[in-house]
This record gives sequence, C-alpha cells and structure tokens, in this order.
Amino acid sequence: MRGAIIRGPLIPAVLTPFASDGSLALSQVEQQAALLHADGVRAVFVGGTTGEFSSLTLEERMALAERWLRVGREMGWTVLIHVGANCLADSCAMAKQAQKLGAAGIAMLSPHYLKPASGEALIACCAQVAASAPETPFYYYEIPAWTGVDVPITDWIETAYERIPNFAGVKYTHTDLLGFQWLLQACGGQLQVFYGIDEHLLAAWALGGQAAVGSGYNFATPLFYRLWQAAEKGDLQAARREQWRAARLIRQMMSLGYLASAKELVRLRGVDLGPVRLPLQNLSPEQAAELRRFVTEEGLEHYWGSNGQHLGTR
Amino acid sequence: MRGAIIRGPLIPAVLTPFASDGSLALSQVEQQAALLHADGVRAVFVGGTTGEFSSLTLEERMALAERWLRVGREMGWTVLIHVGANCLADSCAMAKQAQKLGAAGIAMLSPHYLKPASGEALIACCAQVAASAPETPFYYYEIPAWTGVDVPITDWIETAYERIPNFAGVKYTHTDLLGFQWLLQACGGQLQVFYGIDEHLLAAWALGGQAAVGSGYNFATPLFYRLWQAAEKGDLQAARREQWRAARLIRQMMSLGYLASAKELVRLRGVDLGPVRLPLQNLSPEQAAELRRFVTEEGLEHYWGSNGQHLGTR
Amino acid sequence: MRGAIIRGPLIPAVLTPFASDGSLALSQVEQQAALLHADGVRAVFVGGTTGEFSSLTLEERMALAERWLRVGREMGWTVLIHVGANCLADSCAMAKQAQKLGAAGIAMLSPHYLKPASGEALIACCAQVAASAPETPFYYYEIPAWTGVDVPITDWIETAYERIPNFAGVKYTHTDLLGFQWLLQACGGQLQVFYGIDEHLLAAWALGGQAAVGSGYNFATPLFYRLWQAAEKGDLQAARREQWRAARLIRQMMSLGYLASAKELVRLRGVDLGPVRLPLQNLSPEQAAELRRFVTEEGLEHYWGSNGQHLGTR
Amino acid sequence: MRGAIIRGPLIPAVLTPFASDGSLALSQVEQQAALLHADGVRAVFVGGTTGEFSSLTLEERMALAERWLRVGREMGWTVLIHVGANCLADSCAMAKQAQKLGAAGIAMLSPHYLKPASGEALIACCAQVAASAPETPFYYYEIPAWTGVDVPITDWIETAYERIPNFAGVKYTHTDLLGFQWLLQACGGQLQVFYGIDEHLLAAWALGGQAAVGSGYNFATPLFYRLWQAAEKGDLQAARREQWRAARLIRQMMSLGYLASAKELVRLRGVDLGPVRLPLQNLSPEQAAELRRFVTEEGLEHYWGSNGQHLGTR
Repeated sequence: MRGAIIRGPLIPAVLTPFASDGSLALSQVEQQAALLHADGVRAVFVGGTTGEFSSLTLEERMALAERWLRVGREMGWTVLIHVGANCLADSCAMAKQAQKLGAAGIAMLSPHYLKPASGEALIACCAQVAASAPETPFYYYEIPAWTGVDVPITDWIETAYERIPNFAGVKYTHTDLLGFQWLLQACGGQLQVFYGIDEHLLAAWALGGQAAVGSGYNFATPLFYRLWQAAEKGDLQAARREQWRAARLIRQMMSLGYLASAKELVRLRGVDLGPVRLPLQNLSPEQAAELRRFVTEEGLEHYWGSNGQHLGTR
Repeated sequence: MRGAIIRGPLIPAVLTPFASDGSLALSQVEQQAALLHADGVRAVFVGGTTGEFSSLTLEERMALAERWLRVGREMGWTVLIHVGANCLADSCAMAKQAQKLGAAGIAMLSPHYLKPASGEALIACCAQVAASAPETPFYYYEIPAWTGVDVPITDWIETAYERIPNFAGVKYTHTDLLGFQWLLQACGGQLQVFYGIDEHLLAAWALGGQAAVGSGYNFATPLFYRLWQAAEKGDLQAARREQWRAARLIRQMMSLGYLASAKELVRLRGVDLGPVRLPLQNLSPEQAAELRRFVTEEGLEHYWGSNGQHLGTR
Repeated sequence: MRGAIIRGPLIPAVLTPFASDGSLALSQVEQQAALLHADGVRAVFVGGTTGEFSSLTLEERMALAERWLRVGREMGWTVLIHVGANCLADSCAMAKQAQKLGAAGIAMLSPHYLKPASGEALIACCAQVAASAPETPFYYYEIPAWTGVDVPITDWIETAYERIPNFAGVKYTHTDLLGFQWLLQACGGQLQVFYGIDEHLLAAWALGGQAAVGSGYNFATPLFYRLWQAAEKGDLQAARREQWRAARLIRQMMSLGYLASAKELVRLRGVDLGPVRLPLQNLSPEQAAELRRFVTEEGLEHYWGSNGQHLGTR
Repeated sequence: MRGAIIRGPLIPAVLTPFASDGSLALSQVEQQAALLHADGVRAVFVGGTTGEFSSLTLEERMALAERWLRVGREMGWTVLIHVGANCLADSCAMAKQAQKLGAAGIAMLSPHYLKPASGEALIACCAQVAASAPETPFYYYEIPAWTGVDVPITDWIETAYERIPNFAGVKYTHTDLLGFQWLLQACGGQLQVFYGIDEHLLAAWALGGQAAVGSGYNFATPLFYRLWQAAEKGDLQAARREQWRAARLIRQMMSLGYLASAKELVRLRGVDLGPVRLPLQNLSPEQAAELRRFVTEEGLEHYWGSNGQHLGTR
C-alpha cells in the first residue's frame, strides 16, 4: 500500500468556517476539531466540495490547509488536503505546500471548465500535480456529477498507477458501484478507495468499502459510526435503520440547500461555522426553523450527542 | 401488501427467443423455462428491456405474454408481464390480456418519446393502465437512464399509491440508492420493490432489498443465488466475491454489446435464443469467441452448472 | 435529386385530430386540410412528433396515413408519412402501406428506447425500413433532444446515402447549425433537408435552408410565410419582426404546454382537433384563457387570417 | 445603452500566448495585436474560454489583462476583460483591476463547480462582481455547455438589468436562438449581445445580431468579415459560402483539438503563441501536418492574407 495511514472508516470532508461577513474564520478550526474529536474522528479531508474549495481564493485555501495541518499534527490526526483546481499551477502550489507541512495525502479532482478529452490527458494532469508532492500519497477525486468529466476512471486507473509513483487511491463520489468494485480490485488491490456518498454508505460497506469521505461526518458522525459498527457486527437490521435515518436527513437537507443545512446542523451541535458563500445560498430563518423542527421530530439529538454527551471516542 | 406472491429473491427479466431469421420463436420458451427451473427460478418478468420489448410488435408482445403465462401456469410460477409502451392504448390492451390470462402482476415504464412533464401526468398514465387490469397488481418500472424521464419517483409515489387501488410496487432500475431506500419505506412499507441493476445486487440487499428483477438471472442465476445466500448467512466476504465475479462478467458483456452477449451466454448453457434485433447488433464471430474465452478463463461454468449439473433447486 | 417534389417552403407537421373522448377523429382531416389550403399549404408531414405518433396505435397511425394520403391526392398535395417507431417491423409495415397508397415520401426517426450504438447500426435500421418502400423517397428524421440518440448524423450520412438507393434527405430538428450546413452540402448537395425548429426558421433560411417541417405551420402559416417572403426579398428587418413574433408565441406556448396550446390555436382558427393524449396534458380553462389573451394582445389574428380572411393562397 | 463602444462586429476572444515551456509569454501580445490590427480588428475579449482562463493563475490573468489594456490603449481599441471564476473574490479582484486600468467592459461566466441553484443566486453573483467595477459596463457570459449551469437566462435577465446599474449585456455562447432573440429584445432593447458560436455567425446576423465574440476571429477574421459584409450587402449566397468555408475549418479543428488547432493556425499566419496547457493536449506533428494540408487544400491562405497581404483595414 502506498497510501496514508487512515484511522477509522469515517473521514469528514470538513466544512470551511466563515465569519458572519463571509471572511475566512480560521479561529473556528480548533472548535470544529474538538467537536469531531469528541465524535471519534481521527482523520479529515480539507478543502473539498463540502469545504467550498471552489469559492476560496488560493491564498485562503493555503491558509486553511496550513491551519488544519497544524491542528491535525497536534491531535495526531491524518490530514488529507484537497488541491484540485481548474488551474494546475494552483494545484501544484498547494501540493508543494501540503508536502512541506506534512500532509498525510493530497487529492485532486479533474480540471472541469476546460476538460480533459481522454484518459491520457487526465493522467497527465494527475502526474503533474503528483510530481509536485512526490513523497506524499496522491488520491484522485472522482466526482463526475460535479465536474462533468466523463472519462471513465476504470479505463485509465491502471495506467495512472503505473506511471505515477505516489498514486495511492481514489475518493469516489459516484453512484456507479461497478466502478467502485473495480477500484477496490484494481492495481492488485493496492488502492485506498474512499467512498463519497453518505446516503449510500451501507451499500459501499457491503461491497467491501473500508473507508468513506463525506460531509455527513461533520455533524452526524455518531449516527454513521453506529451504522458502520452494526454492519461490521453483522446486525444489518440496525445498520439499515441508521442508513435510513441518514437518508431522511439528507433528503431534508437537499430540499433546503445541502451545505447551508450542514452548517446549520453543526451550529446546532454548538460550533458556529458561519454562512455559505455565493453561488450557494443561506437558509432563510423559516428554512432554518424547518430544519431544526425536523431534527427534533426525528430525535436526532440522541444520535449525535447533544447536551454534552456523545457516543464516546473510538 | 397488495402485491403478487414472489417466490425467491431473483426474478429473471427473460430474454425473448428469436429464430435465426429474426422471427419470434415461441417454441423456445419451454426450453428456456426448463433451464431457469433447473437454476431454481420460480418467477419471471416477461417483455421488459432485456426482452427487447421495444423491438416487438404489439401482436408479438401479446403472443409472448400468452406463451409465458401458459408455461408459468404449468410450472406453478409467478409471471409478471411488462406492458409499458409509448402508446398507452397498447399498454391497456396488454394489461387486459395479462389479467384475463392470469398474470401475477403487470409492470409499465413511462411513455418516453413524448414524456410526462410532471408527477401528475405520470400518475395519470399509470392510473389509465392500472384500471385496465384492476384485479392485477400493478408495478411501475423506473428506468430513467433509458426513458429520459426525470420526474423523481420519490415525489409522486405516495399519491400514486393512494389513487391507484392496485398499485403494488416498483421495479427500480436506477443507481440512486436514496430513492431505493425511500421506496422501501414509502406507503407504510407496503410496496414491493424489485431492484434492477445486477452489478449492484449486494448493495441493494444491504439496504434491505428483498427481490430483484434482472437480466443476469437468465444465465448466471446460480452465481447470484450464491451471492444472496452468502449475504443472508452473514458471509459478506463470499457475497462480495460473487458480486465481483458478476461485475467482471457484466463489464465484459457491456464492452461487446450487453444483450447480444446475454444471448450468447444462454447459448453456452444449451438453449438457443437466436440473435438480437435491430437497433441492437449481434456479436461478430470474433466477439463471441472473446466472450467464450472470458467465460473459460474465469471458470464461470462451475458457477452456472455446465455439463448438465447445476446448483440444485431452491 | 432523389427526393419528393416539394411545393412551397413550409410543410406543417400536422396535428392529429381526436374526438373529445380521445378517440381518433379522422373526419376532421378534411376541415384541417381546408384551413391549411387557405393558408397556402401544399405539402404535409403526417404522424410526426406534432402528430403525437407515439401515442397512437399502429392501426391508428395507418388509418391516419390512409386518410391524409386520400385527402392529399384529392388536393394535389405532397404527403410525407412518418413511419418511425421503436419497433422496426411496425415501421416497415407503415412504409409498405405508404408506398402502396402513393406517399410522396416516408420519414423515420431512430429507435429510441433500445438505441443504436453506432452509425452502422443506425444505417442498418434505415436500410431495413427504406427497403420496405423502395420506390418512395426516404427521409431520416434527426431529433436528438427527443430520442436521446447521440450518433452524429454528419458521421454516417454519406454512407447511408451510398447504401440506401432511396435515401433522399433529412428532417433536421436540432439546434446544431453546423450539422445543418453539413447536410445541405453532403452527398453532392443532393439531399433535401427540412429544418424543424420554428423559432430558428430565419436562421435556417440564412444558412441556405430551402424548406421546413414544423408544428407552427398548423396555425401560424401566414406569419411564417411573411417571414420567408420578406427574407427572400432581402427585407431582413421585416423577416426578423415576424420571427420575433413567432418566438414570443412559441415561448408562451412552451410555458403552458406546447402541443396542447397548438391545438387550442387551431381551435381559435375554427377547426376543433380535440384534446392531446397522455402523457401530455391539456390546458386548464385558465391556461386556455391566458393563451387567448396573449393572442389578442399580440394582435395575432391579423397574421393568421381570423374572421374568414386570410393572406391568400400562394 | 449602458454598454461599451464597440468597433466593428467581430471581436476576437484572444488566445493566450505561452512560451514553449508553458509559461506566460506576454511579450507576444504586441505581435498578436499587430496581426489582428492588420485584419481589421479594433476590439478584443481577453482571458475567455479561448484564452484558457481556467488554466491561468489569478496573477497570470491579471498580468495578461494589464498587458492587453496597455496595448489596447496604445492602439485605441476596445478591450473587454473576462473576470469569471469559480471564486467570486477572484472575480472581484480582477474587476477592480480592470476598472482601474480602463477596461471598456468586464464579463463573467457563472461559478460552475458549486453552481447557483436559481436566477436569484446567479443575479447575486453578478451583482457582487459588477459592484467591484461600478463604472465599467458589465456583461454576463452565458455558456451552459461548458459551465453546466442550467438556469435559463431569459428568466432572470430583466431582474438583473434592473438591479445591477452597470449591467450592459450578454456574451451568448449557446445554440438556443430563441434565447438569443429574447436577449436582443429584452430590457427595452438596451442590451449589447455578443454571439459566441462562430459556425452559427450568419444565423445570428440573420436574427439581428450586431456583434460577435469568438475564437475564429484570431486567425480567420478576413473570412468572417467577408461573410458579414456580404450579408450586410444582401448577398446571402456569398455569405453562405464563407460560413460554409468556416464550418468546414471548424469541424476539422474540432476533430484534432479545437484550441490547439487555433494556435497552429495563428502560427501559420506568422505569430507563435506556443502550446496549449493541460488539461488540453497539443497537436502531434502528424495532426499539425494534417491541419496544414487541410488549409492548403481549402485554399484558406487567400482568405486570411498570407504572405504579408491581408484584406485591408476596416
């Protein structure tokens, strides 16, 4: 395995904290980390889709990475830094910084405005960025519904693994589970594959998934840990109940605005990460109230450790 | 439950037999059924996508349904008839026939050239067809990647269930597993939901799926039964191995032409179902040889009972 | 030129008349033809998208073709019959009938549930149907936004023209005007190309288009004739005014339901073609009133000859 | 009119010059401008899709804008700066710079990784950037096939025009010509609308378009001027011939890689703009030779003034 040491199956794609004026609020990272720690988290994915990377300046992305790498080091965590961007020179700059500051791994999605037209072109993109952090495990971030890039990863993964010495795995945010199985088996089974759709987590587990990166692990980690532990113990009924609980919540969030809802849920758990940035829109007071009502009606506080209680560190 | 009695979790969407000149070869149905029986099948889905329904005339569809209903009656099977079509009058005619001849259920996909623009319109389509077979369980067939209809089923399923007395369930051929979970819980948990993507079967099982309709159960039923039984026994490792075996086969089939490959595989198992019809294309001799080579290299004969042996009836 | 003799640049894709109970109302065809005749029409395209072909049974399609061919013969018109269907055997039956009854041409769209995966497959589909009416000009109907077939016509048109002796042209309902220019020049300039998007008519004219098949020529032919004549005379200002008038109307119709609005507009002109069939939905009384109000406010009666007046025969 | 003074109907979306090592080669801008000047160009659109904006760092984009604004000022040209980006803070920084350095206008496309979910959200994005250059005309850049943003501009344009004082127009790169007509008429006819698909230029002219921004005006401006002038004189035959010439060239370029081909064509005209950057791929020597052969066979040198000759300044 060329990859990072991953602690625990659930890796939050951390939300990015903003102040009420929309400026980057790095001072909230410690509180955010404390909440995650209490929930049992020991690894984070920084500056991904959930982290609104595309709405941050390069300077902000690097400041955010620096902060998380420091906090992560202090806590003994595994910190993965997302460095994907339309501009590969930006990605390279972030990759260099990540290696210098000791990231456990870097990940990148494909350029997605101008798009690679072939697996060859996509491998060349990955190779350029991976070479900027040659001693750091490199992960490709597959998320075609967002990027619109439709070069099937199954067609180029083996070549990428051969050519790029630090190619370590894939963050796979895709509903095609044949592709997921393929990655689990590809490259002699040496890839680390992180599944990326929270509402499909149990399905990914069933197919042999061993770890997941997602936004739900910012606020509902205890619920997802229960799901995972029940599945591991063979109690599928319990695992299904938790997955269904998560699915209901996610559908509610989608109907209101997913990331704005995620920030509201972290707020309910005691940490204020501020608003989302444009082009996303924040919840109206009515929408926020609707979300809180949903949480109460579903009794979700029990599942994510309200009132100072939590499910215990793993 | 308003639905049909379903025997066993795996329901083949049966291939339609053609003679070498492309004409309908109903005389092959008995042999086809015998092979499926030997594999443990006790329920079939007739005239679906796998059955090339859209390449059959109405007369052929009704003759095919009649034959399968007779054969199914003799064998004590559950026979579901697909009656979906662009023209709802055709669907109604098939629905009437299916009820008259004792089908256990009918299913329909959405009209897909002119498309319903709303859940209301889609419910009205279903209601019209369901009313033509009012004593027969009605199933909606969700398959958006083929129909291009993008009215989310989760938005209209409850209303359809209320308004249509014989609405019994959904054949769900879709990668969105949040929608799948939704259907399993919708309508007070009263829907029968058949999952329709063979290469995701274990995922559907994990989320609580209880039955599947698919093309793989025409030729690789023993493999999929092993998968299901292993999962039910809690041996996920074995279940994953079988799912992965299936995934490799399916990918090979896709690269050559899926349905033409499926007919070739049934031929390897001893039953000749003839060519596929246009707009599909048959395998070239080279492609057929490549598929056979793949089957041998993978040792698949062991899994589907070649040489007169099979895995036994369940 | 292998094609039909086309009279006038504008060919209505005629609406199909239904009685108030939704049954086929062939007796309205004569009235419909009289209205079109008064508007200057001398050629029709029968049983296309506008004619809701996909909601008709095969028997209804053939009865409709028969009626139009008789009416067209009596009036000395050019009658083109659309025979496209998912089931090619149905298409062949309609093609045979069309030739027998003296159609000036037949057209077919691609099978669109199961889809051809290559130009080769699509040519094979066309060849089979064209061979059923070998003495009748054959037109391919390109309408990818409806069929979802994405095999670019520019890649296979020359081969189709070589292989299919009666291949005469293309009805092109597509916003890609590079493809349109390509067809105008392909096959030594021998193809007849009918443009199919009414709101782009002036653009198609500018690029060299010589004829169009569309739904707008059911109710607003005088407007479109003015457009065309102004363009031919070099009065682009006037042509643009008419095109913009049409565009406003079409947008209004789209917002209410396009084909249901088209039937309402023909009703305003004195011919009742009844409702649309499912999966389409009819206008509510409020929507019908809104459409009539729009027509009045825009002063459209002047353009399509209300009150028994019209723009005169051309 | 709130907009910029536009000289001539054809505005090149200028290619960005790179050195052979891929670094920004600003020193080529003067040569590039000289070639364009000889072709009659008096306005440019800098850092758009053709300019590979998404592959440039923010610093590079600003350096490129600065250079073009200086060169443009010296030549008395109209210089429009594209400031669109996923990160609106970047867009605002570029907008401020553009205003400070005297840009005639700024343009932005929508954020396209995280995407606005409504017209409201998109207007808010535009408003934020437009407010950073309040005295500079602001243009929205509609290019849905690249951004994947599907909020129809026709639904929000009037509101945007009301709310944003410097909203001046739209660069419209879209095949929907109903939308194009809508924009020409919207906001009391006060919008400047630049059409963006070179192979549809004559169609846009026919519908009333008055200016275009495109990549073809980097290397084939004389051809497109002929097209435009012929159309304006009422010689549609000649205009169609030129449009068809352009269409053939564009199709050839698309088959090889469009922007890499564009750079090769400028090289043929005597100015070396270097390679394209990843994720795009450069032409192989064989592909470059094929393109040159095509140019020779088509006799295109005559149309773009090779050998130091050109069609004269307009």
